[in-house]
Amino acid sequence: MTTHLSYVHGYSEHETRRLGEQADTLAALLHSGTSYLAGSRVLEVGCGVGAQTVHLVESSPEAEFVAVDVSATSLAEARARLLAHAPTARVSWIRADLFRLPFPEASFDHIFVCFVLEHLTAPQQALKALRRLLRPGGTLTVIEGDHGSVFFHPDSAYARAAIDCQVRLQSAAGGNALLGRALHPLLTSAGYAQVTVRPRTVYADTSRPELVGGFTRSTFIDMIAAVRDQALEAGLMTAEDFDRGITDLHRTTDEKGTFHYTFFKGEAVKTKEA
Amino acid sequence: MTTHLSYVHGYSEHETRRLGEQADTLAALLHSGTSYLAGSRVLEVGCGVGAQTVHLVESSPEAEFVAVDVSATSLAEARARLLAHAPTARVSWIRADLFRLPFPEASFDHIFVCFVLEHLTAPQQALKALRRLLRPGGTLTVIEGDHGSVFFHPDSAYARAAIDCQVRLQSAAGGNALLGRALHPLLTSAGYAQVTVRPRTVYADTSRPELVGGFTRSTFIDMIAAVRDQALEAGLMTAEDFDRGITDLHRTTDEKGTFHYTFFKGEAVKTKEA
Repeated sequence: MTTHLSYVHGYSEHETRRLGEQADTLAALLHSGTSYLAGSRVLEVGCGVGAQTVHLVESSPEAEFVAVDVSATSLAEARARLLAHAPTARVSWIRADLFRLPFPEASFDHIFVCFVLEHLTAPQQALKALRRLLRPGGTLTVIEGDHGSVFFHPDSAYARAAIDCQVRLQSAAGGNALLGRALHPLLTSAGYAQVTVRPRTVYADTSRPELVGGFTRSTFIDMIAAVRDQALEAGLMTAEDFDRGITDLHRTTDEKGTFHYTFFKGEAVKTKEA
Repeated sequence: MTTHLSYVHGYSEHETRRLGEQADTLAALLHSGTSYLAGSRVLEVGCGVGAQTVHLVESSPEAEFVAVDVSATSLAEARARLLAHAPTARVSWIRADLFRLPFPEASFDHIFVCFVLEHLTAPQQALKALRRLLRPGGTLTVIEGDHGSVFFHPDSAYARAAIDCQVRLQSAAGGNALLGRALHPLLTSAGYAQVTVRPRTVYADTSRPELVGGFTRSTFIDMIAAVRDQALEAGLMTAEDFDRGITDLHRTTDEKGTFHYTFFKGEAVKTKEA
């Protein structure tokens, strides 16, 4: 049995572009505070198409990265993305399952995991497995979203229901789109020390057009719109109601709209005892 | 007809303490960035028991404040609070209705409004009325919460329903407990310029006991628990379900719990033309 379930967002070209845009718009918000010393060995788990990897290497040009993903297609795209954006970056690419990583104990100084735990049935086990790979004193950085953090103006029950489709589909696939709020207890119960979790909030209104376009529209609404077929097939909403939900979400990007989403960034240490 | 409706939180001694604790815990979060030059004339509208006033005068010891509230009892408490905490502060206390403020046009450099608009049936009109009182180039600062920003771990439908009672009761009283998300369009449509709204997020987990105690427990849960009688009387929930909701909210303050709430702080300018 593989522990990596079907990826709710899919692997289309459009999805690749969406993840790229998301990462660029959010880079400053999510990556601030994360930089690794020269010569550090850093493992990025679930690098996908390299959307975060480009920012990791930018913030830590002298660190040595190992980027792992289960999808060969994603790894190929990630490699191409890095070649285009940061040709001199020191990244090794390895295809492997998160639960069968081919590294000896204590072989990394730092581990970075972004938007991965939300797709796993056993995030706590995954965190424990990663802890083994950290040297004592090494750090883990985790970034996750929480779709329950979404609220907007004008409010709309249809829009909320459409978002809920995504939450339920992700849950049916074994994941948890509400993981962000549980990050602190997850890290603590997985045996990490000095656990610090902070919200990293996206708030977009007409005074921040780059967030309205880059996050609300191209990242969030597109992500919800992309589950339309699955949602209808699963009988979660009628086509009419779902489409109205998407239309209403787009109203939050208008002149008088606002949109709020919270990511959570956690940092934790592997102690000697742990 | 008075435009100031029945105040959903009531005026009890317990409520006075709650508002004081809320203000102390949140002072740094809400007041950072707000300080007024020596000699500035600043109007605080809806000062209540002075919970914010003490922090205003602390941040701007050389400004001249006029603090207005509709309740004589609250004003007396506010005056006592200031005497105890900041005896040298320059504050004049005036009892008046927000829509009949006894000041000439353009008589203030700055206006500060915190947790007031959410209780009004006509917040936009109020903002327009306040704009009249600002000199050209003067600024308005508004802070409001949004109960739709609440999410927590462990999640609980009962807890969410109990919170929703507060939202519905406030709405029935003519207010809007979800006002925060609408602050930007409200300020813009009231004719202000250079409108900037930013979230000010409270996130509490076991690593931040002062927020768990001071905000989640003593401020938020106490506020929800206080509407129990009104909620039952209005038939919004059964006593059993409501009490379970409060019990579940308390679980978010346990070792493995987390709690998230977003305030919004808006700043805007009265332009010469406006």
